[in-house]
Amino acid sequence: MGWEFWTKQLDEEELVVDGGFEDYSTTTGSSSSSSRAAGMNGTGPSNLVDPLEDPLPGVGTYEDFNTIDWVREKSKDRDRHREITNKSRQSTVALLHSISDAFSGWLLMLLVGLMAGALAGGIDIAAHWLNDMKGGVCLIGFWFNHEHCCWTSNETTFQERDRCPQWQSWAELITGTSEGAFAYVVNYLMYIFWALLFAFLAVTLVRAFAPYACGSGIPEIKTILSGFIIRGYLGKWTLIIKTITLVLAVSSGLSLGKEGPLVHVACCCANILCHLFTKYRKNEAKRREVLSAAAAVGVSVAFGAPIGGVLFSLEEVSYYFPLKTLWRSFFAALVAAFTLRSINPFGNSRLVLFYVEFHAPWKREYVFSLHLPGKSTILGHYPVIEVLVVAALTAIIAYPNSYTRMSGAELISELFNDCSLLDSSQLCGYKQPTNTSETGAGNSLADRPAGEGLYTALWQLALALVFKMMITVITFGMKVPSGLFIPSMAVGAIAGRLLGVGMEQLAYYHHDWFIFKGWCSPGADCITPGLYAMVGAAACLGGVTRMTVSLVVIMFELTGGLEYIVPLMAATMTSKWVADAFGREGIYEAHIRLNGYPFLEAKEEFEYSSLAVDVMRPRRADPALAVLTQEGMTVGEVETLVESTHYSGFPVVVSQESQRLVGFVLRRDLLISIDNARKRQEGVVSASQVVFTEHAPTQPDDAPPPLRLRGIMDLSPFTVTDHTPMDITVDIFRKLGLRQCLVTHNGRLLGIITKKDILKHMAQIANRDPESILFN
Amino acid sequence: MGWEFWTKQLDEEELVVDGGFEDYSTTTGSSSSSSRAAGMNGTGPSNLVDPLEDPLPGVGTYEDFNTIDWVREKSKDRDRHREITNKSRQSTVALLHSISDAFSGWLLMLLVGLMAGALAGGIDIAAHWLNDMKGGVCLIGFWFNHEHCCWTSNETTFQERDRCPQWQSWAELITGTSEGAFAYVVNYLMYIFWALLFAFLAVTLVRAFAPYACGSGIPEIKTILSGFIIRGYLGKWTLIIKTITLVLAVSSGLSLGKEGPLVHVACCCANILCHLFTKYRKNEAKRREVLSAAAAVGVSVAFGAPIGGVLFSLEEVSYYFPLKTLWRSFFAALVAAFTLRSINPFGNSRLVLFYVEFHAPWKREYVFSLHLPGKSTILGHYPVIEVLVVAALTAIIAYPNSYTRMSGAELISELFNDCSLLDSSQLCGYKQPTNTSETGAGNSLADRPAGEGLYTALWQLALALVFKMMITVITFGMKVPSGLFIPSMAVGAIAGRLLGVGMEQLAYYHHDWFIFKGWCSPGADCITPGLYAMVGAAACLGGVTRMTVSLVVIMFELTGGLEYIVPLMAATMTSKWVADAFGREGIYEAHIRLNGYPFLEAKEEFEYSSLAVDVMRPRRADPALAVLTQEGMTVGEVETLVESTHYSGFPVVVSQESQRLVGFVLRRDLLISIDNARKRQEGVVSASQVVFTEHAPTQPDDAPPPLRLRGIMDLSPFTVTDHTPMDITVDIFRKLGLRQCLVTHNGRLLGIITKKDILKHMAQIANRDPESILFN
Repeated sequence: MGWEFWTKQLDEEELVVDGGFEDYSTTTGSSSSSSRAAGMNGTGPSNLVDPLEDPLPGVGTYEDFNTIDWVREKSKDRDRHREITNKSRQSTVALLHSISDAFSGWLLMLLVGLMAGALAGGIDIAAHWLNDMKGGVCLIGFWFNHEHCCWTSNETTFQERDRCPQWQSWAELITGTSEGAFAYVVNYLMYIFWALLFAFLAVTLVRAFAPYACGSGIPEIKTILSGFIIRGYLGKWTLIIKTITLVLAVSSGLSLGKEGPLVHVACCCANILCHLFTKYRKNEAKRREVLSAAAAVGVSVAFGAPIGGVLFSLEEVSYYFPLKTLWRSFFAALVAAFTLRSINPFGNSRLVLFYVEFHAPWKREYVFSLHLPGKSTILGHYPVIEVLVVAALTAIIAYPNSYTRMSGAELISELFNDCSLLDSSQLCGYKQPTNTSETGAGNSLADRPAGEGLYTALWQLALALVFKMMITVITFGMKVPSGLFIPSMAVGAIAGRLLGVGMEQLAYYHHDWFIFKGWCSPGADCITPGLYAMVGAAACLGGVTRMTVSLVVIMFELTGGLEYIVPLMAATMTSKWVADAFGREGIYEAHIRLNGYPFLEAKEEFEYSSLAVDVMRPRRADPALAVLTQEGMTVGEVETLVESTHYSGFPVVVSQESQRLVGFVLRRDLLISIDNARKRQEGVVSASQVVFTEHAPTQPDDAPPPLRLRGIMDLSPFTVTDHTPMDITVDIFRKLGLRQCLVTHNGRLLGIITKKDILKHMAQIANRDPESILFN
Repeated sequence: MGWEFWTKQLDEEELVVDGGFEDYSTTTGSSSSSSRAAGMNGTGPSNLVDPLEDPLPGVGTYEDFNTIDWVREKSKDRDRHREITNKSRQSTVALLHSISDAFSGWLLMLLVGLMAGALAGGIDIAAHWLNDMKGGVCLIGFWFNHEHCCWTSNETTFQERDRCPQWQSWAELITGTSEGAFAYVVNYLMYIFWALLFAFLAVTLVRAFAPYACGSGIPEIKTILSGFIIRGYLGKWTLIIKTITLVLAVSSGLSLGKEGPLVHVACCCANILCHLFTKYRKNEAKRREVLSAAAAVGVSVAFGAPIGGVLFSLEEVSYYFPLKTLWRSFFAALVAAFTLRSINPFGNSRLVLFYVEFHAPWKREYVFSLHLPGKSTILGHYPVIEVLVVAALTAIIAYPNSYTRMSGAELISELFNDCSLLDSSQLCGYKQPTNTSETGAGNSLADRPAGEGLYTALWQLALALVFKMMITVITFGMKVPSGLFIPSMAVGAIAGRLLGVGMEQLAYYHHDWFIFKGWCSPGADCITPGLYAMVGAAACLGGVTRMTVSLVVIMFELTGGLEYIVPLMAATMTSKWVADAFGREGIYEAHIRLNGYPFLEAKEEFEYSSLAVDVMRPRRADPALAVLTQEGMTVGEVETLVESTHYSGFPVVVSQESQRLVGFVLRRDLLISIDNARKRQEGVVSASQVVFTEHAPTQPDDAPPPLRLRGIMDLSPFTVTDHTPMDITVDIFRKLGLRQCLVTHNGRLLGIITKKDILKHMAQIANRDPESILFN
């Protein structure tokens, strides 16, 4: 537990990065604008020096588990940019600084691409090695994986690439023979042993060093990108532990994929690299632009699909995705894909993971989608035991069946594969045509009856389907890094292949049926089981995640077949519709909701006819809104007000009677400023007046000097009227990224709406517990 | 000229579609919300029946050359959707209506895809036929094009596909021989004759029937998508005339492409098909979603690049592009691409237009981009003569040079092509290797010195480059449908190929140079001129249009080479940076600016430190803002105020003294309502009070009944404070699609900012004439 505390401390230290804005203004342009505004009021600028002209450390930063103010962050960045541009006209050094600043975004993208690509390559290699270790060991050196071992030993022919004396299974090594029941049992037990060891290591490491490293991380990243702050979630310990435990978890044979966690790994890389550049270190909004690009990088290296990755980030993960980010994401995704290719984990020079080529053009296709429900077991309270039990179960059941023993990616690749004549795979165990003269040489691939091998394969696949479906549901949500993409695709691909073979045999035996007549000319290959598997995989993944365009593009890039885009699209669409009928939210949205994160879904329309007045606080029965007046309150009164409430900000009005709105002050900024003034500024006591106006009001001579706080006040708070329909209000919150919005009626301040209020209101309408929204 | 008037009338009739909202409320939820708001004020709903509860025809519509209010339109659609959903719980018919309403969007997309795909196929076939007609005629039937003629005649072998006795050149037909100088002159003259005839027909048709059909249409579509209204621009006459004249203009041999205008054609299809569905007919915002998808369809059929088309629409054209539209665009783009494929204009079953396969992996590449300046010639005032002169010039100069005589797409295809050993093209006129034993059979393609044929080709290409560059600049902007994509790509491809061949020869003769040593192993093919051409084409197009991601994806889909994506990206990026150094706006933005359209560019940040108070009206010297008070003004006073100003809307305040804002009324709605009340409502005279409050104030008994106008008032106008930085204000305008925004100071109304004010302010800062912004 000591470790946990220590690492948490470290993460916090590392991620509290926003202190000290030496070189630019923090508040929304207010300090630079006060003189202009004064000109408008016809009085000219004040001569008093505002003690808050240079912001204090801490002013303008956020606490953990809070939402950032996008408008303020973007405004801060524009101020900064303006300052650099203005300075660049003065000296050559400043000009160079300006140029390096302009290119720092591209450099950062390059670094993110390189780092994420390299890490993904390392993970692939390590996972491959550990996975092979479950089966045996290389005598030349234990650090070689199976393929590499045999390749190094130089004694293999092309046909028997995976058989060589240097690679020995555990039974061979221990008992000296690889034949017989005893050897099988030894191998079986070693397989279970390694699986349990890897799983145990993974779950222990995660618990001890980085609790945030578990799961796929995509729901949290989605929430972070929408403006939420979770310190340490993208820190260096999370990165290190997630990388190591991901390898272990994948190698342990658990039914999980590494694709989702790779998105988290890429985002960690991006967040850490952001610290090298002031522009991104100090600005939460700019950093989130980089993280959006990193999400694209993650998918790009996971599937070797750069375009699909960018679309995934755009469609599924990102909240604020300007065009500039689109272009940079694309660059980073390509860099990462090529870095990965140069490390060459897929063993060939193609970017594609499952390159398929079918002999037949596509036909219409329909696959039911699978909807994986959430999970809550009693074992969830004992994560280590839970993981070990599931790992043991997985290993015991998976080993005897060759389709569950192989890794998810291998399985999918095998299922997508179309049978050629020479194919030795069990799935291609068709009877050879006996009468060659009838079918002809060109059509020898077509229309063959299933043979013994295929029937065995079908049985194994059916069992694998049932097992995979159940174990995936149990596995997802365990306290290890776990992705859903590959397991979902595997389930879909098995179902698709089974259906495909079934259709093929139906067409073979009943090729006079009406539905086959149109498109099965005799002797031609009219049904491609591999295509059914591909479409099934897409449909299942689409049903789980509700991805649409990005899924189709990823599948297209994965399989390299532009011609098959239409059946893929039909399947994805159908699966989305079917899944939407069960419930509109995808697995990530459900996860976000269960965790109570403040996430305002951009995809769904707000469909109710409430008005702002129905959602705002205070409600009718509540006490009046806590406001500050622009003058007349003392430091003591302000402190009492702040301490007696828990609000994160207070509106400033002209006077209690008029309730005309002047600005908005954040609690954190207010407390830091008062605290600082009491320590540093002479004569500030509880009786001092707090002044938000430009000019201090005339006071009696014996009064203590006023505390001037205009500098920390947001002079341009967002307002809506009480009659504004909530759909418009929600739209404003989403599009501008607001934290709060003030409500007025005929020019008078009436109340406030925060993001949390909106989410609570939505939960209430949907008959969910409004208290499930935990954060603001 | 009579025709022009008549067609304009028709277009207007057809596009004034917004009258009569029988079934749902027009104002922003105000009518449904008044009772709730009353509850809030503690008084309960009024018992008086508001005569404006059912909106009048015309209220809530827009005038020509005006900007829509996105917020209002989207709100209207949500109200409508809510009503349908509520009704659907009551009866089966309503439920069916609700389902059909939900699917109407997909159905519309399907129709758009089918119609645009079919039209594009028709245009391709017709243009091919007319283009061949310039060279000769088919004796079997004049409606066959050259290839089809020879294919039908059944006498051709594979090698001589384009030579058959049935196809006769004009010289052969007229003089009986195709040899000799005389025949050449006859062919030349016939070529010029047809070119002039086609050009004349094109320009005359455009002038007579649909002046909006000229140009590429992309700048205008961009403006329309941002919310501007140009009636008739997407009407049926524009569609018909643009389709016909596009074929004529392309066939006339002018240096223009059909790709840009196809986007306009697709948008016309979408706009016309929108009239079939109430949901889209009556809502300007929903219609623009469909038009965004149609732009994707246009590019999809132009290049056979569905994914690139969607990204083009997202990156280049669209303003409001929700995720739902992304998915639907993709669907429509695919439907269109497959419709086009089934019509099969590219002659093979691939979607790709220029399918290339190179023998060598890519190398680094750098191509300077070309920046095409705008054009203004004295001939511009005489469009028909201008077109004829340019067409004649083009035909005269282009005919002798085979590279300018062929169509742009053919030229690009030839330039992208890599030379195989058997290639008979002039561009592949290398000397055959004399010493075969040295180079070996496998490397016979590599490193060959240029032969006689290649030198000739290079000369012709250099001349073609100069000619194409000049004539393209002149051609673009003429009063015929003209696209820029293919001409720009052709210019870039020629330059790239020239550079590529130059590099190749340099590498051949100086393969010991440092730069070649690293990547030119002897005997290997180290430089691919075709790749240079491809990259040059991308760079040139990128420089002209400033497309980035979409361009790379389109080129990738065009050429089918995932491996070449990195040089393409490097070229596009470099070309964008170089072009940005000359001026930040692309050709479409420049076009929009020159036409004075009110377009708020979403790509560029507003970089100046102005405040809302600097931009708002009235300025310091101006008379006070024209406002209405919520009660106390008579009909006569309101009419006087409206008539003495030209503003399109008026804020409503509590009283002249307090200036507290209540709402906002549009001029058009106000005039229509008063006019209607005077005609229909008994007792409304000039002395009647105009009342915007919920309850009519108590009046003397002899006073005429008040005119109640709360129903047409927008109760939730957008406001910003005077201190709001303009960058935030511009962001709000862009993201929410506002027309105007009110400015307050401490709760009092101070002024108003319209989109036009912002554009004028931006023009002023950029030292341009603010009066160049013509519309609001």
